[in-house]
Amino acid sequence: MKVIFDTDPGIDDAMALLYLSKLPQIELLGITTVVGNASIDTTTRNALFLREKFGIAAPVIHGAGETLDGVHKEEPAIVHGINGLGEIDIPAVDESGLLAGTAHQFIIDTVNAHPGEVTIIAVGRMTNLGLALRQDPSIAKKVKQVIIMGGAFGYKGRSGNVTPLAEANIHGDPVAADEMFAAEWPVVAVGLDVTHDILLDKDYLAALARDVGENGELLRQMCEHYANFYNNVMGFPGVVGHDLLAVTYALFPEWFETRKGPIVTIRDGLAVGQTAQMPETRKGGDPAWNGRPHQTICTAVDAEKVLAHFRETVSA
Amino acid sequence: MKVIFDTDPGIDDAMALLYLSKLPQIELLGITTVVGNASIDTTTRNALFLREKFGIAAPVIHGAGETLDGVHKEEPAIVHGINGLGEIDIPAVDESGLLAGTAHQFIIDTVNAHPGEVTIIAVGRMTNLGLALRQDPSIAKKVKQVIIMGGAFGYKGRSGNVTPLAEANIHGDPVAADEMFAAEWPVVAVGLDVTHDILLDKDYLAALARDVGENGELLRQMCEHYANFYNNVMGFPGVVGHDLLAVTYALFPEWFETRKGPIVTIRDGLAVGQTAQMPETRKGGDPAWNGRPHQTICTAVDAEKVLAHFRETVSA
Repeated sequence: MKVIFDTDPGIDDAMALLYLSKLPQIELLGITTVVGNASIDTTTRNALFLREKFGIAAPVIHGAGETLDGVHKEEPAIVHGINGLGEIDIPAVDESGLLAGTAHQFIIDTVNAHPGEVTIIAVGRMTNLGLALRQDPSIAKKVKQVIIMGGAFGYKGRSGNVTPLAEANIHGDPVAADEMFAAEWPVVAVGLDVTHDILLDKDYLAALARDVGENGELLRQMCEHYANFYNNVMGFPGVVGHDLLAVTYALFPEWFETRKGPIVTIRDGLAVGQTAQMPETRKGGDPAWNGRPHQTICTAVDAEKVLAHFRETVSA
Repeated sequence: MKVIFDTDPGIDDAMALLYLSKLPQIELLGITTVVGNASIDTTTRNALFLREKFGIAAPVIHGAGETLDGVHKEEPAIVHGINGLGEIDIPAVDESGLLAGTAHQFIIDTVNAHPGEVTIIAVGRMTNLGLALRQDPSIAKKVKQVIIMGGAFGYKGRSGNVTPLAEANIHGDPVAADEMFAAEWPVVAVGLDVTHDILLDKDYLAALARDVGENGELLRQMCEHYANFYNNVMGFPGVVGHDLLAVTYALFPEWFETRKGPIVTIRDGLAVGQTAQMPETRKGGDPAWNGRPHQTICTAVDAEKVLAHFRETVSA
């Protein structure tokens, strides 16, 4: 499976990258970065750092630092730390891992080089994808699948995490998200409806540190900061592995329950950043949703299997 | 329990009225009408018809025909029929059941006459409540409780029934709804998250017709039209008893799971009519929600108990 990983590391992005580095069935073609959990320079630096740490061969490509809606959002240092990785020590990185060019151009070129073969796993804001679509709309038909971590679709009373209606990756660039959902490629949204089931508690993280070695200990250290947010602000019994779940979907879609239908993102007003799917079973539909492609959302997940597989994989 | 029933009959409104007429523990003070399932003249005529049929002593009071947002919405004849009651024969009604004055003035006067004692059960648009609050904001502190049928709050993937985001009673007058949720009275919202569990199927309706007599047969006949919508358009195995569930909440709140927190209604744009609660457990809150009173939403219900109690009560 050829994969482009679009990311804004980010602590759960680091989990997903470690996961990807250990999966022989995935051929990682590139790591494209985007502003989100930290500034674009910080997320790019972090991607280079993690690439080196995890021994990943694929290059890092510098992505968008400004979103399509033109609205600057404050970086969530309370969640990921000022350095984006929970304030762990980050030494100077090896810049040779950085490929020249822009993320959206890399996406366009890579998809055109492997038509029908590339899966994009996007776990940050949708800005690079939006830019790629604007520049070369023809790529939509050539992408195999787009799996995003993003959105909140009305299950289990899970409201947004930036506002009571909006999830961070979508809220961060609602225009790009809306264009991404409207494009004629198959999108699977792994949103808060399922990611909030993926709780890594203290014991789980301690076991990673013990079994995985240096990189497990690195995750555990990052998660001390992350846990501060999830335990004390959100009141969760563990930290949330949002982004790793998008990788799990690529491997085991059968562990998820899903629903299909067109998706709209609210672009402004009090509900800005909200994602809304019209179930495709709705007779007659609704003018604002009709005509858009039927995308997939995840409505439930077997969390136990996900956590077990992540642990086994990164420990191997 | 002193109750004002604010309603737009409507087939499920008729179920709720029959229920109310059989509950000795409820003292029905008045039936206030509002535009919604049909025009204000039609819903008022229907209220008078049902009052007479069900032997209700309380008067009907003519309510608002125009909503606070000033936007006319088409009447949902596909759901409730052109006559609002599933095209059953409705003879000329006894106008003596109509009390002079307006619904919102009746609400104000009644609440002021019985401070701390009146429960308002509102199962139509919130227009009369909004008008009453605007004219005499002091009533909020004097109402015992407001139980509404309205909204959809993000459980079980239940999206709206007018748009993929908005439920009909709220979408019908989002301004009134927003003012109603913002007032300092205790509101309980019985929304689609729970009402879609209250499915009356063919056998249940046949049993009502058999056990309840004339009025059971009347409900069954109305429900033939209603079933046309719910079975064929929505794909449900029965018709939905939305409004009767607001009455059940007044009697048995312990049959419901609930969540508390401030509620905002989106007043315009693509998400117009959407209701969004910020869970009160959210640390720091959100500027648009903070400062509003913590209202209650219903997140789950014991549907079996509800259907059994309704049937027993109206059959007695």
